[in-house]
Amino acid sequence: MSLQSQQSTPDFPVVSINRDKLMEDIHYTAQWGEGERWGDSPTDIGMARLALSDSDKLVRDWFMEKVKSYGCNSHVDEMGNIFAIRPGKKEGLPTVMGSHLDTQPAGGRYDGILGVLAGVAALRAVHEAGIETEYPIGVVNWTNEEGARFPQCMMASGVWAGATDVAQVHQIADIDDPNAVVKSELARIGYLGSTPAHWTATPLAAHFELHIEQGPILETSSQCIGAVEGVQASKWFTITVTGRDSHTGATNFENRSDALLTSAKMILRSHQVATQFSSLASTGLLSLKPGSTNTVPGVVNFSLDLRSSEDRNIDEMEKILREDFEKIARDEDVASINAGCTRGRGCTVSWKVDSDAKVANFDKECIECIEKGSEALFGQKAASLTRRMYSGAGHDSVHTSTRVPTAMIFVPCKEGLTHNPAEYCSPEDCGNGAQVLLNAVMRYDMLRSVKARL
Amino acid sequence: MSLQSQQSTPDFPVVSINRDKLMEDIHYTAQWGEGERWGDSPTDIGMARLALSDSDKLVRDWFMEKVKSYGCNSHVDEMGNIFAIRPGKKEGLPTVMGSHLDTQPAGGRYDGILGVLAGVAALRAVHEAGIETEYPIGVVNWTNEEGARFPQCMMASGVWAGATDVAQVHQIADIDDPNAVVKSELARIGYLGSTPAHWTATPLAAHFELHIEQGPILETSSQCIGAVEGVQASKWFTITVTGRDSHTGATNFENRSDALLTSAKMILRSHQVATQFSSLASTGLLSLKPGSTNTVPGVVNFSLDLRSSEDRNIDEMEKILREDFEKIARDEDVASINAGCTRGRGCTVSWKVDSDAKVANFDKECIECIEKGSEALFGQKAASLTRRMYSGAGHDSVHTSTRVPTAMIFVPCKEGLTHNPAEYCSPEDCGNGAQVLLNAVMRYDMLRSVKARL
Repeated sequence: MSLQSQQSTPDFPVVSINRDKLMEDIHYTAQWGEGERWGDSPTDIGMARLALSDSDKLVRDWFMEKVKSYGCNSHVDEMGNIFAIRPGKKEGLPTVMGSHLDTQPAGGRYDGILGVLAGVAALRAVHEAGIETEYPIGVVNWTNEEGARFPQCMMASGVWAGATDVAQVHQIADIDDPNAVVKSELARIGYLGSTPAHWTATPLAAHFELHIEQGPILETSSQCIGAVEGVQASKWFTITVTGRDSHTGATNFENRSDALLTSAKMILRSHQVATQFSSLASTGLLSLKPGSTNTVPGVVNFSLDLRSSEDRNIDEMEKILREDFEKIARDEDVASINAGCTRGRGCTVSWKVDSDAKVANFDKECIECIEKGSEALFGQKAASLTRRMYSGAGHDSVHTSTRVPTAMIFVPCKEGLTHNPAEYCSPEDCGNGAQVLLNAVMRYDMLRSVKARL
Repeated sequence: MSLQSQQSTPDFPVVSINRDKLMEDIHYTAQWGEGERWGDSPTDIGMARLALSDSDKLVRDWFMEKVKSYGCNSHVDEMGNIFAIRPGKKEGLPTVMGSHLDTQPAGGRYDGILGVLAGVAALRAVHEAGIETEYPIGVVNWTNEEGARFPQCMMASGVWAGATDVAQVHQIADIDDPNAVVKSELARIGYLGSTPAHWTATPLAAHFELHIEQGPILETSSQCIGAVEGVQASKWFTITVTGRDSHTGATNFENRSDALLTSAKMILRSHQVATQFSSLASTGLLSLKPGSTNTVPGVVNFSLDLRSSEDRNIDEMEKILREDFEKIARDEDVASINAGCTRGRGCTVSWKVDSDAKVANFDKECIECIEKGSEALFGQKAASLTRRMYSGAGHDSVHTSTRVPTAMIFVPCKEGLTHNPAEYCSPEDCGNGAQVLLNAVMRYDMLRSVKARL
């Protein structure tokens, strides 16, 4: 994808992103919160910029100064969210580009950061081109998206959207220091603002978020822009299989209640069922008791993470798996999983629901603006280079989508690697993403103006 | 099984065990090393009599006194093994009944203890009946069979058999106290004997061991005597499956290298193959990395414990599983295990051999003596109440069988439960076992005499 110039004649003003400056900003601001080195190049260093740390303060200070130089007025709310707004020709709500500047403790240079700095690059492009948008546009830095230091993901966008209560969230403590809570740390670094953290206090016209994919789909399909239609539903369970400890040498198969063999069949079955539904089922945690080479495990706990772009698939998969796991626990056959096995005495199975997030569906018009933005960049090739897709992971856009038109742009990241120092998005993909982001915002701004005239 | 009187006319002197006295001894000596209470009855208390502890000294002292009162001469070797020998009509090697008085830290009242105290009951019966056997008979208490305090199972019978070196074993330390080694603890409790711990220094004619089954086979089949033909071969492996960590929401099945799903298929496959070979395959340990609900595991380690009563089955199962695990790792189908699955990117698999114990085959004549001993007790019903079987667990008899004719008698234990305070063998089964043990020894003694006259 070496298509760096605009290739068609779009119906909105096209302003080119300075791609070199964007990369400079990404690597310059990485000085605040440097993490683990993973390669030989000067930029082969990960990030450890935990929310509301000293390094988070420094990058916020840099951000405030930059956006001011591009003609923005900024305000900070009581969750430390920063709203940088550049006025347009007309009064009205701003169309914003939002993401987050905090990282995981062993994070990389792109997750969240790209979305905010691409917004900064977009403001720079508009400012330097001397363009006045129809309505205000802006950039938002949402506080503590990662939930790494203060354990609540998408924390401050959740407060803004009214999903969680500010007073309660203010008291969430640092996972390592019970005396450092969100509110005290906001005050300490000078980002405890006075504006209520609420969508009614800082209303927005629309929210666009550029983000690395955090998966391998775009890279594998040689595509470079994901027009994200929403975030998958996910439902998390802890499954407990209870059998009976027994001696591996002295207990024949017929007399076993093997909780691990039973769990292995369930994990396999969940994969089969998810395949049927073009959905996902995953087990990332598994623990067993008592844990000895010569003892058949009596108890196994494992996590089951079901995901789908349709809520009803989650419901149906859960229903089927609850029935099938009962049968598997009784050592009855399901889908030939018991073929060639010796039937034992069976186990029991119980389920606990750990979380249940419905599908977040993004705004159709915003998604189309992204596609048009990709067309403006890639011309005829846009159709093959762009794909509609669902996000598997949660983002601040999940919360904004409950209050304002929202969509996301994904760009490839190498091997899908993320939450890892070696997370990587090429300069080309960063630039493409930033350009599509700006194009989408310009088109949305134009459409609002057209609609207002109707 | 309420057949407490001898039912046939055997070809050896039949002497009845005092079953009540046997149970009295079991519960009386349990005062030394009382463990956890698990029920309401006065004897519903487990055992915690670690080898060479103060309570081990006290039960040894009791044992020495008892066997002396039944006409035995005892000696202790440099491993603390006690050999109590009752002279016969003729000079010659003794036919012994051996097992161990030490227990697991959360053990029960029967594992090992029954074998030694049934030997004491046998000596008492012979002594009180005023019988002189053809050759000497006796009882052996082997030191630290459990390997719980000093981590080497069947420790002192192994030294006696020449499988391990006494100087090295003397330096094995208490798992909790590096200053307490086997030799210093033997000396401390007064059981560091002067006789070399070696089969040439204390030669035996034959070794019979009564033991609880530690499995559910006799109980399930409503049988009460196992004539143990040997101990299964076992080979232990650690299997490592290496895939790639990835996000459970953002990584589609096609792009995963799921080390846990792959391991689940391998565990299922090992069970199928063991079923084909009428053998056993078990996984008692499994750990994974990184361990997070929303991360597909990149690395899984699991134990694989193969057992069979034929060495060649172990070899063949290993061969098949090494080939099949390679295919499963590459996400190729084996025995339809992949039916209904989505093929991913595959993993790699590696094997480490942790231990390799060949089949121990017991002596045919000793096994027949046990069967004849059961016939003498049960008459015509003996055939249905007795079964030939292999032991799944190791015992001191594994070591003695390498040097002298050996066989074991199994009696049922409730639900196969063992190494547990609630381990239970009914008074009837304890008595039956002790009686068959004495009968087998009497027959073996008689056969030696007959052979000597030929």
